Amino acid sequence: MKAISEYTSDVETLLRDIELPGEKFAGLTDPIRYALSAGGKRLRPVMTLMAAEAFGGDAMRAADAAVGLEIFHNFTLLHDDVMDKSEVRRGRPSVHARFGVNSAILSGDTMLTLASIYINKVEDLQLRRVNDIFNNMALDVYKGQQLDMDFETRDDVTLADYIEMISLKTGALLGAALQIGAVIGGASDKDAGKMYEFGMNVGLAFQIQDDWLDTFGDSITFGKPIGGDIANNKKTYLRLAVGESSGADAGALKMAMTIPDREMKIKTVTRIYEKAGVGDMCRKAVDAYMSKALGALRSTSLDDDRKDTFRRLAEKLVGRKK
Amino acid sequence: MKAISEYTSDVETLLRDIELPGEKFAGLTDPIRYALSAGGKRLRPVMTLMAAEAFGGDAMRAADAAVGLEIFHNFTLLHDDVMDKSEVRRGRPSVHARFGVNSAILSGDTMLTLASIYINKVEDLQLRRVNDIFNNMALDVYKGQQLDMDFETRDDVTLADYIEMISLKTGALLGAALQIGAVIGGASDKDAGKMYEFGMNVGLAFQIQDDWLDTFGDSITFGKPIGGDIANNKKTYLRLAVGESSGADAGALKMAMTIPDREMKIKTVTRIYEKAGVGDMCRKAVDAYMSKALGALRSTSLDDDRKDTFRRLAEKLVGRKK
Repeated sequence: MKAISEYTSDVETLLRDIELPGEKFAGLTDPIRYALSAGGKRLRPVMTLMAAEAFGGDAMRAADAAVGLEIFHNFTLLHDDVMDKSEVRRGRPSVHARFGVNSAILSGDTMLTLASIYINKVEDLQLRRVNDIFNNMALDVYKGQQLDMDFETRDDVTLADYIEMISLKTGALLGAALQIGAVIGGASDKDAGKMYEFGMNVGLAFQIQDDWLDTFGDSITFGKPIGGDIANNKKTYLRLAVGESSGADAGALKMAMTIPDREMKIKTVTRIYEKAGVGDMCRKAVDAYMSKALGALRSTSLDDDRKDTFRRLAEKLVGRKK
Repeated sequence: MKAISEYTSDVETLLRDIELPGEKFAGLTDPIRYALSAGGKRLRPVMTLMAAEAFGGDAMRAADAAVGLEIFHNFTLLHDDVMDKSEVRRGRPSVHARFGVNSAILSGDTMLTLASIYINKVEDLQLRRVNDIFNNMALDVYKGQQLDMDFETRDDVTLADYIEMISLKTGALLGAALQIGAVIGGASDKDAGKMYEFGMNVGLAFQIQDDWLDTFGDSITFGKPIGGDIANNKKTYLRLAVGESSGADAGALKMAMTIPDREMKIKTVTRIYEKAGVGDMCRKAVDAYMSKALGALRSTSLDDDRKDTFRRLAEKLVGRKK
């Protein structure tokens, strides 16, 4: 198998060549090109290509599906940014900040249909199966986003609710990207299912790690200001874990969340998190999900070299980089 | 074949029974149920069922596709209402007016994926073909909506531009509804293509008629206040036809469109339209597209009885009811 960076550059080439509505429809095409040119790790399509190759196919047989999944992922970012009123994405104005809300809605819709069109390019024999995985995954992602929005106004959110939400919103797409690649590569249903489970659990580990980085990361490596989740009262793994802990920390956290001054609030909550040992809590949770992920990977019929490539991919993704 | 009203009631039953994300996701499910329960003529799914039956299939073999097309249609209304800031739809608050913009965006996305899921329930042999027709139609609809938005700020829109816009925004879906039904019913590619052409041209006739009714209809039968297009400076068939006419009318129209008082503007523009003979212009255009539609219908291999049923459907749709 090739190096991960080579798959990434394959994806960039594929994305540059996608067919979009012509010049006459610049109002649709410009926001889509803008959204797709923002870079990012291209993790999902890379996973699709790698899984197709690992299970015996040529990676390029999964090229269309990989492109479809990356378009889908960017569609969700685009509509989520509208819903969250996020003006910045990957260091640039988000699509709606740059092109207006209406363009963001309509070009997002177009991207979802484009994603379907690319997913539909798979061979006849795999068409229904790949379509079903894709569409069910999409429903999961919307459900996750709905729960995430519901959480904003709920004060009874548990850690279990949170895990369900990120399973749907983050895990499902990583799982489906690997499963679809595996199916195209010719994997058995069992192996393809195990790859989904691997991706799902890597996704959970990744999201918990991402929550931790939002408070304890380095703003430059992390790509956005530190403490945003605290300032915006997001119900993160950190907040829910400490909130559910017995004793003084939960009470202190509840008080600290009401501090009006942004910087003071971030500083105080961060101190409570540290005192409660949130770093350990996160590390344990990340390790647990990673170990579930690697268990699923081990139970596939892949040879050790291939398993090792996926393990390295997962570790790269969930590496605790500050 | 059954009476049109019986197909309509079949569609209502089918829509009541669709599977939606469960109770836990009420934030998604409630807006979708609300959108789908607003009634309407259910024209597109009725066309799908009728076409399937006319070409020799059982209408119910096209039930899932019909449901998918009606869900798609309502998804476009839902997102269009957000983009147009339309607060009322079929005499009730629009989805975003009732549930908020974020719910309208996310439940709209969910509806697009649900539409795909229903479209994907067709038999293996027709899966790719039906999917392709559906996805290409969806792209056409977005292109049409984009042109419609572009027209708001353009002052060089021609009648030809307008016809292109409504072909994409209105005609393509009526065409695809019939074509998909025909394919499922077992029609030849030629017949299915002719049914698309029939639906496309009926759609154009319908839209021009609808433009005329917006100025000259009866507000109760029409379901919304008369003169809205004039008040909102919409580039309708009427405005573009008179605007392209030679002589005094075009100039007078241009002046009248700048009148600040809403009622005065509607009254003045309506008088100019009457003087320019816009009723005749519209009637001729409607007749021309209807005759193209019926020409396509005639060239199918359907027997005369069946052709007659579709002709009556088209005439019912484009009947000049005030």
